[in-house]
Amino acid sequence: MSTTDTPVDNGVNVAALLGAREAFTAAPEAAQFKWRANCTWRKGTHSSSTVDRFFGLGEEQQHRQTYTFDADHPEIFASEDNGATPVEFVLVALASCLTAGVAAVAQNREIQLRSVSATLEGDMDVSGILGIDSDIRNGFSGIKVTYDIDADASPDDIKALVAQSQKRSAVYDIITNPTNVTVEVR
Amino acid sequence: MSTTDTPVDNGVNVAALLGAREAFTAAPEAAQFKWRANCTWRKGTHSSSTVDRFFGLGEEQQHRQTYTFDADHPEIFASEDNGATPVEFVLVALASCLTAGVAAVAQNREIQLRSVSATLEGDMDVSGILGIDSDIRNGFSGIKVTYDIDADASPDDIKALVAQSQKRSAVYDIITNPTNVTVEVR
Repeated sequence: MSTTDTPVDNGVNVAALLGAREAFTAAPEAAQFKWRANCTWRKGTHSSSTVDRFFGLGEEQQHRQTYTFDADHPEIFASEDNGATPVEFVLVALASCLTAGVAAVAQNREIQLRSVSATLEGDMDVSGILGIDSDIRNGFSGIKVTYDIDADASPDDIKALVAQSQKRSAVYDIITNPTNVTVEVR
Repeated sequence: MSTTDTPVDNGVNVAALLGAREAFTAAPEAAQFKWRANCTWRKGTHSSSTVDRFFGLGEEQQHRQTYTFDADHPEIFASEDNGATPVEFVLVALASCLTAGVAAVAQNREIQLRSVSATLEGDMDVSGILGIDSDIRNGFSGIKVTYDIDADASPDDIKALVAQSQKRSAVYDIITNPTNVTVEVR
């Protein structure tokens, strides 16, 4: 642990986030967001999804650019492996949400981060999705996330950062708690 | 609805999948998979995640290539929008999982698909993640998936395809049911 003369800068604009908190408290309807993705089937288990527009602050918003993601199953499932598997996208979502949270909480607590990395592993018995045993769930039986963090803080303070990130993480909530999904065919 | 002389081909090797089902029934330990992602913090809310190796069929496996995904928050949250948001990755995961399932089920039911596309929208009150109101959850209040499918089948058969895909979807299960997540700091 060391002290520095330079101000803590993790690249997170905490003042803006605290300003947003005040603004949303005054105008709760601005906090209603709609996040979107569009998916087009390519062939077999291969699809391409795009992320572009979303709704928030009371109006339509747009990313700086359209993000495109190919997903597929691996060759050992007789597919072509044209992209990560859908369940690996879930791990990417969780990793990136918790990691952004670590940076934001560190900034708010004036802890300088030097490096943050995470390893995620999700266990799955594919007997579920293949319909071999209806007692085995389709999804992960569990996910383990392991962080390596180098920061200007004690081990306990670093653990507290990660704990607070979990507490405010959208994706951690989505995975650990049930969410209603409606599927319709037009 | 029309009939064709050519065999149904959606690009899914159903014979291989049914073979896998037999193989896993005979050797259940081969069905134990571990899916992984690694995440490195860049700056602020920006991170890069990679997907490369996984475990299955009793041994280490590797994708044809390493897939890399940048995630970030949008500019309206005072971030740089260097990638899709973590919650949009959840939508991509759900879209790609259900769409791969539609293709696989269609193949098994001998339904020729011509086009499949899906639009996903997840509602979120960001008062949750900003800590404004602890009664508001961090994640989506709900997700709506809408499919447009052109296939050699009746509207009812197409709806049944999508329903069966939901029933066997890993990501649909992960989102609609709780999954245990353990987070550790090394």
